[in-house]
Amino acid sequence: MTEPTFPPLMSGLAVTGSADPFETACNRAIVGCDAGLVVYNTAADRLSAALVLTPDVPLAKAVAMLPLCAIGLQNALGALAPPEVAVHLEWEGGIRLNGGRCGSFRMAASDNTPEVEPRWLVVGFFLPLLILGEGGDRPDETALFEEGCADVDPVRLLESWARHTLNWIARWEEGGNKPLHAEWRGLAHGIGEVIEVQGHSGVFLGIDEDFGMLLRDETSTRSLPLTLLLET
Amino acid sequence: MTEPTFPPLMSGLAVTGSADPFETACNRAIVGCDAGLVVYNTAADRLSAALVLTPDVPLAKAVAMLPLCAIGLQNALGALAPPEVAVHLEWEGGIRLNGGRCGSFRMAASDNTPEVEPRWLVVGFFLPLLILGEGGDRPDETALFEEGCADVDPVRLLESWARHTLNWIARWEEGGNKPLHAEWRGLAHGIGEVIEVQGHSGVFLGIDEDFGMLLRDETSTRSLPLTLLLET
Repeated sequence: MTEPTFPPLMSGLAVTGSADPFETACNRAIVGCDAGLVVYNTAADRLSAALVLTPDVPLAKAVAMLPLCAIGLQNALGALAPPEVAVHLEWEGGIRLNGGRCGSFRMAASDNTPEVEPRWLVVGFFLPLLILGEGGDRPDETALFEEGCADVDPVRLLESWARHTLNWIARWEEGGNKPLHAEWRGLAHGIGEVIEVQGHSGVFLGIDEDFGMLLRDETSTRSLPLTLLLET
Repeated sequence: MTEPTFPPLMSGLAVTGSADPFETACNRAIVGCDAGLVVYNTAADRLSAALVLTPDVPLAKAVAMLPLCAIGLQNALGALAPPEVAVHLEWEGGIRLNGGRCGSFRMAASDNTPEVEPRWLVVGFFLPLLILGEGGDRPDETALFEEGCADVDPVRLLESWARHTLNWIARWEEGGNKPLHAEWRGLAHGIGEVIEVQGHSGVFLGIDEDFGMLLRDETSTRSLPLTLLLET
């Protein structure tokens, strides 16, 4: 495997075997690494990676980095996968490839208080490359190489994700949530459908300005903040 | 003074008094800080800052970060200064405001071998805000506040520099040197003029693809690589 190269504001750190880049990234962030560390694991059957960020905004705003990083992956797949492969993003972080579940994004921060600027925020994802064992158990799950993407090199995909994510961070700095919002809405999975999310069910109407989910049930429309997705 | 805010891939570190952010950034990089550290000093009479980068390309290519960061400052001044203020950039790192010398950029790397990927690269600048003492000694020198920019807030300028630099890094990752090259040529000071640079004199014809200076003397045209500017 060739080593991935990253933009000058990012540094790569490879982990192997069963090591989870998300956990490694959080641990590094806790002991005080700087922003831009990309921890990654390019195993034979899955690609996983996590990026350490240091947003200078309150957490309620900073969580926009989750959809931002997911859009980065969609853009990277758009550049490297065959054009007929459809990539959609679930509000909760899930990745959909041709409609099937195919990995997900997650995030954690130094402090989960929405009003407080976090010391660090880690956004990570995993993307299955192959379905190991019996695929029949979970017929709605898929993997990258099962969806006509066997020629996509995971290392190139990782590099492209980092570049597209950097690009979106630059656009977000320049234009705020608006361009990100527009891009995300075009990629969102399940808008207009009845869904169940974080213990609530209703019609997924769309997102508010901070990427909160607008969910309408029989009685009212509520907004579920993206901070709900923060792991502890 | 309000504290500057930086994009999520950058972390700020303030130094004060006579501390030079460039030296601090190099020292931090030597002991192993990650990319994206912005060390800055917002003194009353000058703004200075330095950015730590970890380019995954050989140094001969990575030195493009010097003109890139300088373009970031020109863009920031373009956004914050009155429109009639002209900012130009010297090949050697000098900043020109309305034609007058007004601070400069510099860079240093972990290793000055052009073919080797450096462990780190630091690009920094200083920008005088006020001319202290007798200005008459150096009539070709100026300062930001002397050039109709007294309303430019140095902290906002620093933030804007960081954002524009991030933006150019994203563009550089996407499109290589070409867009940077085009932007730089439009801002270059002294193209077509006889100049003296790094002990050589001749006509400054332009730049080669790696931002080397094309210099023509009586007998030939030589290319001075940008790596000449690396400090040791």
